[in-house]
Amino acid sequence: MVLANTYHLYLRPGIAVIEKMGGLHKFMAWDRAILTDSGGYQVFSLAPLRQVSDDGVIFRSHIDGSQHFITPELVIQFQEALGADIIMVLDECPSHDDSLEKVRRAMERTHRWAERCQKAQRCNDQALYAIVQGGISSQLRHQSAEYLTSLGFAGYAIGGLSIGEPKQVTLDITEVTAALLPKNKPRYLMGVGSPEDLLEGIARGIDIFDSALPTRVARNGAVFTGQGRHNIRNAAYSQMEQPVDSDCDCYTCRTFSTAYLHHLFSCNELLAYRLATIHNLNFINNLMSKARTAILNDTFSSFKDSFLSGYKTTDEQIRLSQKQKRLRARNINGDSNL
Amino acid sequence: MVLANTYHLYLRPGIAVIEKMGGLHKFMAWDRAILTDSGGYQVFSLAPLRQVSDDGVIFRSHIDGSQHFITPELVIQFQEALGADIIMVLDECPSHDDSLEKVRRAMERTHRWAERCQKAQRCNDQALYAIVQGGISSQLRHQSAEYLTSLGFAGYAIGGLSIGEPKQVTLDITEVTAALLPKNKPRYLMGVGSPEDLLEGIARGIDIFDSALPTRVARNGAVFTGQGRHNIRNAAYSQMEQPVDSDCDCYTCRTFSTAYLHHLFSCNELLAYRLATIHNLNFINNLMSKARTAILNDTFSSFKDSFLSGYKTTDEQIRLSQKQKRLRARNINGDSNL
Repeated sequence: MVLANTYHLYLRPGIAVIEKMGGLHKFMAWDRAILTDSGGYQVFSLAPLRQVSDDGVIFRSHIDGSQHFITPELVIQFQEALGADIIMVLDECPSHDDSLEKVRRAMERTHRWAERCQKAQRCNDQALYAIVQGGISSQLRHQSAEYLTSLGFAGYAIGGLSIGEPKQVTLDITEVTAALLPKNKPRYLMGVGSPEDLLEGIARGIDIFDSALPTRVARNGAVFTGQGRHNIRNAAYSQMEQPVDSDCDCYTCRTFSTAYLHHLFSCNELLAYRLATIHNLNFINNLMSKARTAILNDTFSSFKDSFLSGYKTTDEQIRLSQKQKRLRARNINGDSNL
Repeated sequence: MVLANTYHLYLRPGIAVIEKMGGLHKFMAWDRAILTDSGGYQVFSLAPLRQVSDDGVIFRSHIDGSQHFITPELVIQFQEALGADIIMVLDECPSHDDSLEKVRRAMERTHRWAERCQKAQRCNDQALYAIVQGGISSQLRHQSAEYLTSLGFAGYAIGGLSIGEPKQVTLDITEVTAALLPKNKPRYLMGVGSPEDLLEGIARGIDIFDSALPTRVARNGAVFTGQGRHNIRNAAYSQMEQPVDSDCDCYTCRTFSTAYLHHLFSCNELLAYRLATIHNLNFINNLMSKARTAILNDTFSSFKDSFLSGYKTTDEQIRLSQKQKRLRARNINGDSNL
């Protein structure tokens, strides 16, 4: 599935342009599934200024500073015009270090907005997902899951995680929240995408993930292998004849040596970003495919243990400080792909 | 055919790396024809400092300032290690505004170097091409063509044109020089690649061209059509449903609207550069294919007139000042893709 973002598309090229071009599938020539995020997360993380009320959010564009006003109803209208297969409610996203009281108020507003989004829906061929908020409080997550479940949505997302809190907290809150959501509906953990986190999420009942991580780190030269993430820019790879990942069947690994990829990155050739991206997406697709098979064979737990025992993850202190640095840089630059 | 450059590959990743990886074809996974330029042009246009003697050229890398010495023999040795199908002699390239005397001395040195390159050749499965110099002097071009022809090469290139002189001069000197070269050997006009120049070159007997222009202008958003070059960044294209070129059968035109390409360029999406490049290369390939068919049908002259009557070319004053500006910027930045 491809995820597209309503906030970005609203600002550029504009919802009306895509509608005129026949919708998002046709615009980007993608005939498989698309999910559009509501833009809530981007409004709260990218827009330099914003003013939230129960009505909606006034915000300034991170591109040109122009002022805009969105409401739950508008966000549904936009997503119906874009025509994705799965669409998301507008939610209010607090920071990971906001007070419990602030997190509670954001959650309650998210609930009122979810109800309005549900009522605003006109097309019946799009699946509308709610977003559970409540920060790192099990109690709030419980309230949020219960309330949104009572409204009845096509699927349920867990928002407000993986935004700078420690990884163990992400996993614990995911576990608590996922257990409260209907087992017969898709459960979607937003913004999570490293190989180890995918498996940990699946182990806790998650069905859907989204993340820019595999493509973002690819553009920085980091490629996934069964042993961990390697940086292709490292001088050690300058004369390596083997592909990036000998176990991989992707176009990049079937066709080129690691030395060639290293060379392309050294010269900042555009092809470098594409080849590394192809590999990382293939790696993630294969990992998810293997996880599905393991679930069907009732061997998921041993599959996960076996993968994780071979896969060296980034040190948690380093990961967390990089993540927080990136979130700060993003707030300054407004580049959600950072 | 793909052109690769010995100067660039010598500096990064180094000739030995490519040799170790099984040669250039294997390194870049391209099993069709490759031509390597000797690097003469780059040494004279990119290297920030150089010292030429009959022995060879001492130059500094435009990347890290390191000092290097190349000779005609080394350049052949490098190209044999790279393993291209067509290889080029080392030549000395004067500027378009150098004195006649300087141009003559460069030509004479180019002749001595061509002879040494010929003697240095060890592999008999690569076609070695000579490069005719002589600036914009018909007399010198005559001498150069005659001398190099007497040595007997697999093909003959015309160097030292399209480097900042007026277009009519390029065409006139091409015409004079091409007429002096053997009709049974490929005649190659170096550094020429706009649609109109290709047809003008073919009309004057040229068989082979090379140019970064179609891909470079694509990355700047300029796409070829039968009516001329259009800049996709222009706001007029923001809502155009038609493809970039309705007559085109390339992947980009078959798949996407002009509005989509415009959007990708507006957002600096990497896909923009790729899609525009695919279109421009396809346009040039189709143009050359049509020219070949017209030659075989003995209708080239009317084909050329018909194409040129519909194709709006860039104003010559603007073209020339842009070209000279680009050459100056390149000398400062060392980016041969500018």
